[in-house]
Amino acid sequence: MAKSMTLLWGAGSPPCWRVMITLEEKNLQGYKHKLLSFEKGEQKTKQVLEINPRGQLPAFRHGDIIVNESIAACLYLENQFRSQGSKLVPDGPAERAVMYQRMMEALALTDALNSVVYYDWLVPEEERHDSAVRRNKDNLTTELQLWESYLQNVAAGSYLAGAFSLADVVAFPNVAYAFRFGLSVEQYPKLAKYYRLLKDRASIKSSWPPHWLPSPRGYDVLKDL
Amino acid sequence: MAKSMTLLWGAGSPPCWRVMITLEEKNLQGYKHKLLSFEKGEQKTKQVLEINPRGQLPAFRHGDIIVNESIAACLYLENQFRSQGSKLVPDGPAERAVMYQRMMEALALTDALNSVVYYDWLVPEEERHDSAVRRNKDNLTTELQLWESYLQNVAAGSYLAGAFSLADVVAFPNVAYAFRFGLSVEQYPKLAKYYRLLKDRASIKSSWPPHWLPSPRGYDVLKDL
Repeated sequence: MAKSMTLLWGAGSPPCWRVMITLEEKNLQGYKHKLLSFEKGEQKTKQVLEINPRGQLPAFRHGDIIVNESIAACLYLENQFRSQGSKLVPDGPAERAVMYQRMMEALALTDALNSVVYYDWLVPEEERHDSAVRRNKDNLTTELQLWESYLQNVAAGSYLAGAFSLADVVAFPNVAYAFRFGLSVEQYPKLAKYYRLLKDRASIKSSWPPHWLPSPRGYDVLKDL
Repeated sequence: MAKSMTLLWGAGSPPCWRVMITLEEKNLQGYKHKLLSFEKGEQKTKQVLEINPRGQLPAFRHGDIIVNESIAACLYLENQFRSQGSKLVPDGPAERAVMYQRMMEALALTDALNSVVYYDWLVPEEERHDSAVRRNKDNLTTELQLWESYLQNVAAGSYLAGAFSLADVVAFPNVAYAFRFGLSVEQYPKLAKYYRLLKDRASIKSSWPPHWLPSPRGYDVLKDL
């Protein structure tokens, strides 16, 4: 089945990484994939636009079926291969509710991270303001503290919603990203513990962004949060 | 069952409206609810923060279970009451894929609309730029044209993913919002047709934002898109 799947992806992109983790968890190794370069603008090329009219990565196809939004692709794969590999949506109503809630909240974490890490890339030079940079950092701090508190309340050494689930699939790439960009292990001990719990999981390790291996730390823009 | 549910909501908020439509579709009338005022900042009051630490609406509780993110709440309700009321997640893999895809893409439409309609509210005066306003309008035009093209490709008079589904639950409030703020019926005929198809659906009509009834049109900020 994996042979009829194609993933166009960009290295280090949390949305791409989510789909790759899900494919691993569902034992769908062997899918066709191609690494494209954001730096070269390859997400705007014809091969991407034919699958994803937004010119964004991931661009994911399973036979004639196209699902590009990362959470949509994860939900689709979990539904389609329910009894294969890890079960990523829990059965219990309470766990399932927390799972959906954290999975969707992870998009707020993505946005808050991007607005700090990629500020100069997202905002044209003549529109930049120190006050906006400060506000974005404050928002990110508030966001990270919220996740720290969520992890404070789960059972020791636990995932976000009981067993490993789509909540972790969606949120973990953001957490990895934050530590790569200098987030303090001392300031965010629960997030750091969560990071250590997950980073060596097979699905995550085998899909680790390849360019992160030779240079594990990005520039430390988040060190003072 | 609905009696053990509480929804704190704000009028006209697409995220709140999505949850209300889902509750109607799943025959969960009779839930407790309270209309709060964004103008008065009531989303930051204790009664909200006890349910939603983000101080955002909706704040939704079902017994001891809390789900605040609108798509998370819709997915939770559909899963929890699968055989009750309308079926909101299609069975067929192709329809289900499109459903998840459009449901998640609707968040891009929400963001693009908010960045134009609420620009002055979102951006402090000293950080505002005409170039940003123009870019936000261009982004929204591109976004709306994408949805127009999606509706071009579905069967005549159809919903976003075959039968009425969570894709429509999530996207429709944005579409209603766009027309309320002056979007041209001539420029976006497919979106206009989709709007007319859904606006009188029982679940949508009975949850229509109450303050929209006496004044059906907001200020026409979108008329030139």
